[in-house]
Amino acid sequence: MRPSGRFPDQLRDVELKPGFARHAEGSCLIRMGVTEVLCTASVEARIPPFLRGTGKGWVTAEYGMLPRATHTRGDREAARGKQSGRTQEIQRLIGRSLRAITDRNAMGEMSITVDCDVLTADGGTRCAAITGAYVALYLAFKHCVAKNVLAKIPLIGQVAAVSCGLYKETPVLDLDYAEDSDAQADANFVLTAAGGIVEVQGTAEQAPFSEAQLMALLQLAKSGTSQLFGAQNAALGL
Amino acid sequence: MRPSGRFPDQLRDVELKPGFARHAEGSCLIRMGVTEVLCTASVEARIPPFLRGTGKGWVTAEYGMLPRATHTRGDREAARGKQSGRTQEIQRLIGRSLRAITDRNAMGEMSITVDCDVLTADGGTRCAAITGAYVALYLAFKHCVAKNVLAKIPLIGQVAAVSCGLYKETPVLDLDYAEDSDAQADANFVLTAAGGIVEVQGTAEQAPFSEAQLMALLQLAKSGTSQLFGAQNAALGL
Amino acid sequence: MRPSGRFPDQLRDVELKPGFARHAEGSCLIRMGVTEVLCTASVEARIPPFLRGTGKGWVTAEYGMLPRATHTRGDREAARGKQSGRTQEIQRLIGRSLRAITDRNAMGEMSITVDCDVLTADGGTRCAAITGAYVALYLAFKHCVAKNVLAKIPLIGQVAAVSCGLYKETPVLDLDYAEDSDAQADANFVLTAAGGIVEVQGTAEQAPFSEAQLMALLQLAKSGTSQLFGAQNAALGL
Amino acid sequence: MRPSGRFPDQLRDVELKPGFARHAEGSCLIRMGVTEVLCTASVEARIPPFLRGTGKGWVTAEYGMLPRATHTRGDREAARGKQSGRTQEIQRLIGRSLRAITDRNAMGEMSITVDCDVLTADGGTRCAAITGAYVALYLAFKHCVAKNVLAKIPLIGQVAAVSCGLYKETPVLDLDYAEDSDAQADANFVLTAAGGIVEVQGTAEQAPFSEAQLMALLQLAKSGTSQLFGAQNAALGL
Amino acid sequence: MRPSGRFPDQLRDVELKPGFARHAEGSCLIRMGVTEVLCTASVEARIPPFLRGTGKGWVTAEYGMLPRATHTRGDREAARGKQSGRTQEIQRLIGRSLRAITDRNAMGEMSITVDCDVLTADGGTRCAAITGAYVALYLAFKHCVAKNVLAKIPLIGQVAAVSCGLYKETPVLDLDYAEDSDAQADANFVLTAAGGIVEVQGTAEQAPFSEAQLMALLQLAKSGTSQLFGAQNAALGL
Amino acid sequence: MRPSGRFPDQLRDVELKPGFARHAEGSCLIRMGVTEVLCTASVEARIPPFLRGTGKGWVTAEYGMLPRATHTRGDREAARGKQSGRTQEIQRLIGRSLRAITDRNAMGEMSITVDCDVLTADGGTRCAAITGAYVALYLAFKHCVAKNVLAKIPLIGQVAAVSCGLYKETPVLDLDYAEDSDAQADANFVLTAAGGIVEVQGTAEQAPFSEAQLMALLQLAKSGTSQLFGAQNAALGL
Repeated sequence: MRPSGRFPDQLRDVELKPGFARHAEGSCLIRMGVTEVLCTASVEARIPPFLRGTGKGWVTAEYGMLPRATHTRGDREAARGKQSGRTQEIQRLIGRSLRAITDRNAMGEMSITVDCDVLTADGGTRCAAITGAYVALYLAFKHCVAKNVLAKIPLIGQVAAVSCGLYKETPVLDLDYAEDSDAQADANFVLTAAGGIVEVQGTAEQAPFSEAQLMALLQLAKSGTSQLFGAQNAALGL
Repeated sequence: MRPSGRFPDQLRDVELKPGFARHAEGSCLIRMGVTEVLCTASVEARIPPFLRGTGKGWVTAEYGMLPRATHTRGDREAARGKQSGRTQEIQRLIGRSLRAITDRNAMGEMSITVDCDVLTADGGTRCAAITGAYVALYLAFKHCVAKNVLAKIPLIGQVAAVSCGLYKETPVLDLDYAEDSDAQADANFVLTAAGGIVEVQGTAEQAPFSEAQLMALLQLAKSGTSQLFGAQNAALGL
Repeated sequence: MRPSGRFPDQLRDVELKPGFARHAEGSCLIRMGVTEVLCTASVEARIPPFLRGTGKGWVTAEYGMLPRATHTRGDREAARGKQSGRTQEIQRLIGRSLRAITDRNAMGEMSITVDCDVLTADGGTRCAAITGAYVALYLAFKHCVAKNVLAKIPLIGQVAAVSCGLYKETPVLDLDYAEDSDAQADANFVLTAAGGIVEVQGTAEQAPFSEAQLMALLQLAKSGTSQLFGAQNAALGL
Repeated sequence: MRPSGRFPDQLRDVELKPGFARHAEGSCLIRMGVTEVLCTASVEARIPPFLRGTGKGWVTAEYGMLPRATHTRGDREAARGKQSGRTQEIQRLIGRSLRAITDRNAMGEMSITVDCDVLTADGGTRCAAITGAYVALYLAFKHCVAKNVLAKIPLIGQVAAVSCGLYKETPVLDLDYAEDSDAQADANFVLTAAGGIVEVQGTAEQAPFSEAQLMALLQLAKSGTSQLFGAQNAALGL
Repeated sequence: MRPSGRFPDQLRDVELKPGFARHAEGSCLIRMGVTEVLCTASVEARIPPFLRGTGKGWVTAEYGMLPRATHTRGDREAARGKQSGRTQEIQRLIGRSLRAITDRNAMGEMSITVDCDVLTADGGTRCAAITGAYVALYLAFKHCVAKNVLAKIPLIGQVAAVSCGLYKETPVLDLDYAEDSDAQADANFVLTAAGGIVEVQGTAEQAPFSEAQLMALLQLAKSGTSQLFGAQNAALGL
Repeated sequence: MRPSGRFPDQLRDVELKPGFARHAEGSCLIRMGVTEVLCTASVEARIPPFLRGTGKGWVTAEYGMLPRATHTRGDREAARGKQSGRTQEIQRLIGRSLRAITDRNAMGEMSITVDCDVLTADGGTRCAAITGAYVALYLAFKHCVAKNVLAKIPLIGQVAAVSCGLYKETPVLDLDYAEDSDAQADANFVLTAAGGIVEVQGTAEQAPFSEAQLMALLQLAKSGTSQLFGAQNAALGL
């Protein structure tokens, strides 16, 4: 019934390749079905001006898409001279999600930038980016511990994300592009392994949805992210 | 207990002044407590390229803040040469919210741009903008009906928005700036008079929140927007 | 004979609302007929690099227009990514006019930025901006005196501005939009209460004008600004 | 008494080299003392959208300064990515001045862009640009007549410009950089050979100036431009 | 003696993965040692304005580098708002190289954009991009033939590129980053399988080099590209 | 046989006017046939951040073209808001060429920016710019010696540039615009008086060229630059 033939509560095939990028302190190539995002975490000593002297660190994210990650070629944002509103919205979301599980006091005055670049897009790129970014961030902190820059990994939670939607009245998990284009509503959930909600962004694409439907999507998201937490831990050897 | 002294489920004082702007086809100055946003709806015959020949109309929004709408002066975006990610995120949200209750087929190939400019900011500007923009949009459509450009007002719902948050563990309605700065979590709800959810954007500012807390915030939002729907109708003489 | 029905030497109805903006150290909403400009003066400790160590202060201005301040909607400069030549020309004029009556040595190393944002445009916005900006600037300095940041208000003059023009061969005072569009020539005069000329900008729109005509326009401007000086003083309670 | 040793009513040495640029339809290198501006007039068939179908032509100007035209090197505007407010103000002034003496109906739907590029700056560059631009524009129209594109030169006046100022209380003509930096007030006058005023822009640099002083500056400007009109005609062989 | 331990005339290990990108009409992931570049060729019906009506096609290229492709993170060009001079220089080179072996008349009025995005950088990225881009372009044309859009592949040559340099006085082939940083001179050669030179760009990094040295570098390049032509053909199954 | 009527190995008429710009520490107006480039060298105390504390100086270049330097008017880069890829490529080339013959350790921590602005273009502007820039740079260093800022001129070589090309199968020296437009291949050579190659940039415009042809072009370039070295020395009085 779904274009993908998946059950309503079935994730796409997930693959996490930690350490994919050769130069970054932490990295992870995440694949969810056809969607593929390269996440790299870069450690830098400099810190934004508003944090100087506070003893706190900074975690931020940037997001991009290769011009031909999509079915038809999109403009290169660097050539157009600015990032789209969509790009900025996504990278702000990724950054907030990562900061929500980071103990920035324990981190000290350093910064980590996680770059999430979409190599192939087939729906759910922002959620895949968050799930992969967690692994890259973890590895970057682990690198800092190995280098004696940090005493321990300053993470206070584990975060992953998945999109859910109403497809022909049925709540379904992990929309791909075909499903997303035809969904009545979709919602992105950023959840923690401890069961908390970090971000929820629900949008009615066709008609407004109900509280009950929102709850049904949230249940699917909890089920989906529980599998993603397992995949993250497996990738990290935990 | 709230800095504002309000009850947890108490909205700020709301005022809607329809027809505030002299030149616009529809306009509304909305004040929620100290927050003040001028919403103007401009009707134009031209339509974005991707809609030409489809018979559908377009509704979009732009958002801005006067440099000294805030406690300390912010940079003027026009002088800096670009709109911030926050600005773009907000104007995309307003546009989606308005399109969700517009019958764009009935509207025909015309476009309406709703400008939401914050004259004074004290928290909740994006929600106030949506609530005021609905009134401006309604009036612009009414103007088109009066001019015989449209046969009837092509709206299929009524939309309003309010922010809720967890303040010292208590769910509270309609955060002002002081409350927002200190909230554990906050969520913006865009709801329809028919009880549907158009947009929900919840963010954990300090610690992740629970499903029960999300539900409690949603109940507050329903109560708050029911008052806003009344205020909109009163302003429109309905 | 004038589209407005006013006598040649008659100003539009003028209203000055001091303290209109809640957060600014000084502010004034000025209305001249339909034209309405919100002027806010923001005090900041930082100073442009070229003044550091000189003991002198800085007064500058920025100008903007809400997209639908005009009869038909104009592009938002922040969205277009740059301020127009007209905008820059106007804000440079306002800044120079304010600096001309400020004792920047007495002011010390602080800066005041006066934002002039046009809420409704019907001709004469730059002149209204200057007249209103004087009140906002005065109030900001008064605020500094009340806070013991300054010993006395460092103003050495009082400034106001008005546009005059040749309309069907007759010199007329304070052009509105309809008159301005059809004027043969127009000139903006920035004058002081002491009778001095701070700025004069005259432009032939159709045919060159004569020295005698320039003098006639200047006389009208003197008469017009003398009323504006009274209105400023009344608004300031002087 | 003037730093330049000139009499108060003495112009700098003026030189106009018509046809200086090899490719342009009209051009003139103007030198006033040390200030040197290359003016080229380019004829193009395309016309701005707002003029299509009106039968009217367009005359516009652009202004620039070589980075080392000045005593110390200035940023290259192309490298900085935008034209300064000063540059835009000047090029708008030049364009208005040229349109004031052009019969745009007789010109027909074509456009002429006059580029004024300052090779060496020593004060008065905008005025020199206008005086030189007139010659370049005349020659471009003459070229159109020679090519049978136009029946006659569609100019209805002759325009030139000069700056005057108050230097140690004395009105002086044609300020150079040293004088301009130290003037109490300065004014740029764009005048026609028929005795009309096209533009006047007076600015008090130190203290406001009086009506009598403005008149004295205007008399100097008339005397100065009468010499410039002669130089233009000599250069054009008229 | 080389940091890489390679012989002076030894290429890095080369790998070409045709069809790597899922959506593009043609693609190739090229790896030369650690350097890795993803090349995608996108076929589009639209053509630059200057070619409309000429019957000729267009081949162009864009180049980018993921922010953490390098040893330390570089700014994201999309976030900075412009492409660097280096980026533009490289993408112009790739485009010229591809056009040099394309029969644009046979291609007809369509365009192909080849995006070359560096996933990992270790020297020689522009040369790897050209070598990989040829394969992507070939596959895109093959796709057009399969779709009956073209009768035959409109390529009139085969192109590949390699950098050579003088390292401690010795001419060496295919510089990696460590060698490049320390080379006295380096030259990029874009050569055809038929033995022709399409582009040569030689630069003295320390001291000028001699004609004999340039010749020696060219001989190495010929030897290196002959291996690359073989690798391209193998990847294409030719 | 050449459009210009010149012999294959004949340079255009060359003229170097040292000291042409009044304010710059060093300058030279170079004319090669119709092509005319104004080169000014500006000495500044500030230095790029990456060189602070290294004791080394910096030499860089910027390139521009007046809008009507060309046969038809080109856009003004300052108005368009960015420098073209071609402009950036050229100014990077000029900068590298000058640094190749400068002893930056002997120069100490100061910087020289050489601006090369094309007044009239007829082919070969980048080569003329390099040849003229050398003279401007030499004079700026000489100025520093005269001012006792430097003990001696920190140049370790003499540099000049010329373009050569294949025109109707014949190698020809110093292409003008007509020849360049129709050349099969062209190459720019930046050579030193000591016989070394600083830069070579060869491009096949129509068909790939051979090693023998590259050598023939290099021989012509050597002959051409030997004349240019003489002209430089004559202009410098050496």
